Amino acid sequence: PAEQKARKPRWNIRASEMSRNTLNPIRAIVDCMKLTPNPDKPMIALSIGDPTVFGNLPTDENVLQAMKNAIDSHKYNGYAPSVGYMQSRESVAKFYSCPEAPLEGKDVILTSGCSQAIDLAISVLCNPGQNILAPCPGFSLYKTLAVSLGIQVKLYNLQPEKCWEIDLHHLESLIDEKTTCLIVNNPSNPCGSVYSKEHLQQILAVASRHCIPILADEIYADMVFPGCGFHSLAALSTDVPILSCGGLAKRWLVPGWRMGWILIHDRAQAFGPEIREGLVKLSQRILGPCTIVQGALDCILNNTPQDFYSNTISLIQSNSQICYNALSTIPGLSPVKPSGAMYLMVGIEMKHFPSFQSDVDFTERLVTEQSVFCLPATAFDYPNFFRIVVTVPQHMMVEACGRIREFCQAHYCPSSPDRNDLDQ
Amino acid sequence: PAEQKARKPRWNIRASEMSRNTLNPIRAIVDCMKLTPNPDKPMIALSIGDPTVFGNLPTDENVLQAMKNAIDSHKYNGYAPSVGYMQSRESVAKFYSCPEAPLEGKDVILTSGCSQAIDLAISVLCNPGQNILAPCPGFSLYKTLAVSLGIQVKLYNLQPEKCWEIDLHHLESLIDEKTTCLIVNNPSNPCGSVYSKEHLQQILAVASRHCIPILADEIYADMVFPGCGFHSLAALSTDVPILSCGGLAKRWLVPGWRMGWILIHDRAQAFGPEIREGLVKLSQRILGPCTIVQGALDCILNNTPQDFYSNTISLIQSNSQICYNALSTIPGLSPVKPSGAMYLMVGIEMKHFPSFQSDVDFTERLVTEQSVFCLPATAFDYPNFFRIVVTVPQHMMVEACGRIREFCQAHYCPSSPDRNDLDQ
Ligand SMILES: Cc1ncc(COP(=O)(O)O)c(C=O)c1O
Ligand SMILES: Cc1ncc(COP(=O)(O)O)c(C=O)c1O
Repeated sequence: PAEQKARKPRWNIRASEMSRNTLNPIRAIVDCMKLTPNPDKPMIALSIGDPTVFGNLPTDENVLQAMKNAIDSHKYNGYAPSVGYMQSRESVAKFYSCPEAPLEGKDVILTSGCSQAIDLAISVLCNPGQNILAPCPGFSLYKTLAVSLGIQVKLYNLQPEKCWEIDLHHLESLIDEKTTCLIVNNPSNPCGSVYSKEHLQQILAVASRHCIPILADEIYADMVFPGCGFHSLAALSTDVPILSCGGLAKRWLVPGWRMGWILIHDRAQAFGPEIREGLVKLSQRILGPCTIVQGALDCILNNTPQDFYSNTISLIQSNSQICYNALSTIPGLSPVKPSGAMYLMVGIEMKHFPSFQSDVDFTERLVTEQSVFCLPATAFDYPNFFRIVVTVPQHMMVEACGRIREFCQAHYCPSSPDRNDLDQ
Repeated sequence: PAEQKARKPRWNIRASEMSRNTLNPIRAIVDCMKLTPNPDKPMIALSIGDPTVFGNLPTDENVLQAMKNAIDSHKYNGYAPSVGYMQSRESVAKFYSCPEAPLEGKDVILTSGCSQAIDLAISVLCNPGQNILAPCPGFSLYKTLAVSLGIQVKLYNLQPEKCWEIDLHHLESLIDEKTTCLIVNNPSNPCGSVYSKEHLQQILAVASRHCIPILADEIYADMVFPGCGFHSLAALSTDVPILSCGGLAKRWLVPGWRMGWILIHDRAQAFGPEIREGLVKLSQRILGPCTIVQGALDCILNNTPQDFYSNTISLIQSNSQICYNALSTIPGLSPVKPSGAMYLMVGIEMKHFPSFQSDVDFTERLVTEQSVFCLPATAFDYPNFFRIVVTVPQHMMVEACGRIREFCQAHYCPSSPDRNDLDQ
């Protein structure tokens, strides 16, 4: 019996590798920051990519009414097909269909948020050991999902001095025989950039040359400032097959509802039945979004007045302008003018702020001294920048810019004509 | 240029192995069946595990009102934390907490349906190459999820002659050093069985002896017929850590809403912080359930009248009795009496039905001749049985049983005293 006791197993439960490899860089960085605001100044968070938190951007009443109607109909309580009700898929297809990129219900897969759309798209296109191309700076979820699945991520550079256009040479240099997906995020989080037709065509040309399908993260589709049109990649593609991911989260201002979709834009049967079937199979793992939201989808897409969309854009544009104009005149900062989405990136000329080690250090101290929190762009693999969310109420935007100015003035050091200064 | 053309890559997009390994046995079998009903008889589908399809089991008005209140509050449109609002997690904790298995908000993770709860639980406990133990017959999702993740599934036998109790010797014989999770589904789909306290304690003893954590799929918790109490595994466990998966789908009759949860019942810190952190990390991949449902959760759990629950159970029990009593008297069939959930399994004494090859063949012909569709239990890895869903309107249950009788009578052959008959 003593012998037997020695053999008795002991509890030794370990979290799986997948869970340990599911890394969230924003959390990793923010959780390590000492975020103690200045007690004399109320906190202003310009860090949260949730446009609903301040109450200044409520969703439209029609959107809420559509939900209540779906509930009252008693028709949307049972299981939907794992890819969504055909009727709801058709509504999305109709909303986004255009002559250059026609869509039918069968081309739409409804998902639990754009996040699951991205998850399914990456999961169907890539095997462990293969690689995907993702923007730098870029939304961190791409890397989180891919790495946890054993897929390598190669980051291609965006160029702040060219309105965050892709460095196409760099992009092309990363492609190898194991590259199975190119992720393009337009309009961009965190950049707020919107690509021109010409630039999108150049991107498509690269994908076409190497026969790499595109995952177009277009969750900010149509959220562009007046004057700069939004072009979906699919509408410009003649031969490159595209999975376009989107959802209700941003444009309809209901991110918590978890309604997303994949639009399958096949070209010359390059996806063929295999990718469609693969997506259907993957959708059966946990099924799609809440049926009430699915039931409301047709009304949400068709009954939301144009004013609602344009009011949102106006507010975002106006805040962007206030912020860009203010920060442009602050020595040591280089904001990049956005054209859409809800973000603005600001470069920090670190040589002029010798008291800070990094963007993390800079933004941490901005909290301590001025109670303004901006996300350090290290969270997007892009040091020496920080990201500002421009959906806050205008008075907070103005106040925050004033405080950032004060902060920078307090820490700015004009560069000395030091011969070691590489910039000379 | 001819040379260059030869080198030009060609489109060769393949669906990933994971998507190809995501197998849904129910679909695989049903899609291959020739399901042409008899044109003279209206179809009766006893195959669909969705209690809402016939309209005879509507959810409670309070449940719908809770949703409308959540919408009107304008408070639940933004992002929730990836594991759910703390307030909603606390509501679930309070609802399921008991002295033997206390729960707090931090012990609850809200998920997109019980399916995602099972996905996260398997994903956090197991690595590719390890194995899990799952019931046979059992809900097919366990295998679908595990296999797609490269995790082996070992099926342990349930014993129809013992009200589907687990064959504990068989269970124990399957355990090896790579076994990282024991899945127990109580009450059971497809069996409709409900385990006694004693049997659950025996299961816990096996898990304890080998130090294997349990995934308790308790989506049918409390859905038991009067007289047979439901015991959660956690309430009986002194040392075995348990992840209990549940949700609103079945008891509240809103499967489409995709609200599920994991209840973390740690024991002696066997899970420790690692499993909790692993679950949190995994939840960040696609975030949890729709925030409107989260906002309604407290009212749904607390304001639903007791009558609603007992009316549902009454209907299910009454149908079960009708069905069990009718099928018991049909030569060649061996229904197993259920005690809960919403299913009933029926054995087919195949030797008496020589015209059919299998349960698939049997149920296919039942459609062709009688327009009654029951799921062949091959879909649950359990040939020679079929599953009946007992949530249909009573008149359909009665009618279906009559037709099954007619069908069996038409095909039944009394066994001949054939010396080759191994049963002699
Ligand atoms: C670029 C981008 N893609 C996808 C998402 C995820 O969207 P959802 O909340 O619908 O999952 C976000 C959210 O911030 C985003 O910024
Ligand atoms: C035993 C069992 N577990 C889990 C589920 C999945 O539940 P949900 O619809 O909440 O994902 C089901 C659904 O039928 C089931 O029968």
